[in-house]
Amino acid sequence: MTTQTIFEQIQLKKSFLCLGLDPDLDKMPSHLVASSEEPLFDFCKTIVDHVNHLCVSVKINTAFFEAYGVVGFTTLHKLAQYIKSHYPELFLIADAKRGDIGNTSLRYAKAFFEAMPFDAITIAPYMGKDSVEPFLTYKNKHAILLALTSNEGAADFQLKAKDKEVLYKQVLKQSQNWNNASQLMYVVGATKAEHLVEIRKLVPDSFLLVPGVGAQGGSLRDVYKHGANKKIGLLVNSSRGILYASNGEDFAEAALEAANALQQDMKNLLN
Amino acid sequence: MTTQTIFEQIQLKKSFLCLGLDPDLDKMPSHLVASSEEPLFDFCKTIVDHVNHLCVSVKINTAFFEAYGVVGFTTLHKLAQYIKSHYPELFLIADAKRGDIGNTSLRYAKAFFEAMPFDAITIAPYMGKDSVEPFLTYKNKHAILLALTSNEGAADFQLKAKDKEVLYKQVLKQSQNWNNASQLMYVVGATKAEHLVEIRKLVPDSFLLVPGVGAQGGSLRDVYKHGANKKIGLLVNSSRGILYASNGEDFAEAALEAANALQQDMKNLLN
Repeated sequence: MTTQTIFEQIQLKKSFLCLGLDPDLDKMPSHLVASSEEPLFDFCKTIVDHVNHLCVSVKINTAFFEAYGVVGFTTLHKLAQYIKSHYPELFLIADAKRGDIGNTSLRYAKAFFEAMPFDAITIAPYMGKDSVEPFLTYKNKHAILLALTSNEGAADFQLKAKDKEVLYKQVLKQSQNWNNASQLMYVVGATKAEHLVEIRKLVPDSFLLVPGVGAQGGSLRDVYKHGANKKIGLLVNSSRGILYASNGEDFAEAALEAANALQQDMKNLLN
Repeated sequence: MTTQTIFEQIQLKKSFLCLGLDPDLDKMPSHLVASSEEPLFDFCKTIVDHVNHLCVSVKINTAFFEAYGVVGFTTLHKLAQYIKSHYPELFLIADAKRGDIGNTSLRYAKAFFEAMPFDAITIAPYMGKDSVEPFLTYKNKHAILLALTSNEGAADFQLKAKDKEVLYKQVLKQSQNWNNASQLMYVVGATKAEHLVEIRKLVPDSFLLVPGVGAQGGSLRDVYKHGANKKIGLLVNSSRGILYASNGEDFAEAALEAANALQQDMKNLLN
């Protein structure tokens, strides 16, 4: 999927919402866990079926599937295929945080872009250029580099000065020189919205995937104010706030309501 | 597995060899690919059955399994279980390069330490402390942090100065203060052997996982000279040099010969 298509979807849906799927059997409605033979799939499918019109992207967190072994991984494949075939307009992200030497990264690219129909995958930049470029050889596919993450540990290395410049800025700058850099996007946590002004100076045109609004305390308004560009350039993720809005029989309606509230806020900002 | 057990195995086997399993259908013996219903499993099983007595560790590269979708992931599980049940004395590493916010890293820990019987997993340090510590809450399990990798892209960030100190040294230093840091190990590429003297000043007691000997040009002698500590503290990995020593009917014997040559070199260094 091209970034132009994402931009058009944002205009059409008046939304830059990314739905995050982090299914957790302990937090899911107990009636569904008890009655379903495939609770991970059924839960995620139901949520996506209810809120797809309110979001432009879906981000699947692979860890929450891998934790359940082969069954979980099989569900991951099935879910990715379900979403892509029923909602091809949704920008489908594998939140997988992969990245290795070139030879190995190429295998991960095959896993997520060929064996599965993802449009993008999140990547840790620590191993540099040749660990990322294999993902960018796929036309209209994207690597979303970790830049400044929303967690506490972001302070350990990302915000440390390197040659008088913090590491995450070096990641932004340097990666812009890599092959097919126009297919790069970046993860920037909403909890670090004050950095967005500086980030936009370095990557004015790139899309940013922004977790951390809601549960983690980031402000949607601040993210939009400092992070939006001419093509909006933001995919703001919400996972737990939508998925676990209720754990009763009304979980899907509650998810719809939560997603709707976010989309309304986004619509107001877009106008 | 404790590092004391690894040390005892090193003494017993006169080897600090880690066998890397990166099975590639295009490089595997064509007769096996043509005749086997499970070529990835059969190939890896045959290699392990032939060389297990010469190595103290096996490192499975998850990407080479994920690239083949659900079938590949199922094989990954089956292979890990096969190795752990038949050769419990081998230190079993998932070369998976995971790492995410704490909540998600905990799922990856479940995937590799509960759903699968790995003793250790490789982790990218970019997201800092809370992305790594969940792996260290498992007793006698290990997180192997990327420090200085063997690829070209290592120069992009790892070797850049931060507050007058290169990033990989910050990773070594800082991580030593994390909870259960004694369960940390580090990836240091053999192609960067000249850095080992400095590395040993920062992490004198930690085990180092060292890829890059052989195909990538690193010297076993230099790695041992600069990297060995009182308990040896090295797991030197060889993948392609053993796996693809021959792609004919004699592939297992050729693998044995290649592993044997490496073990003999190690024995000489250990004496």
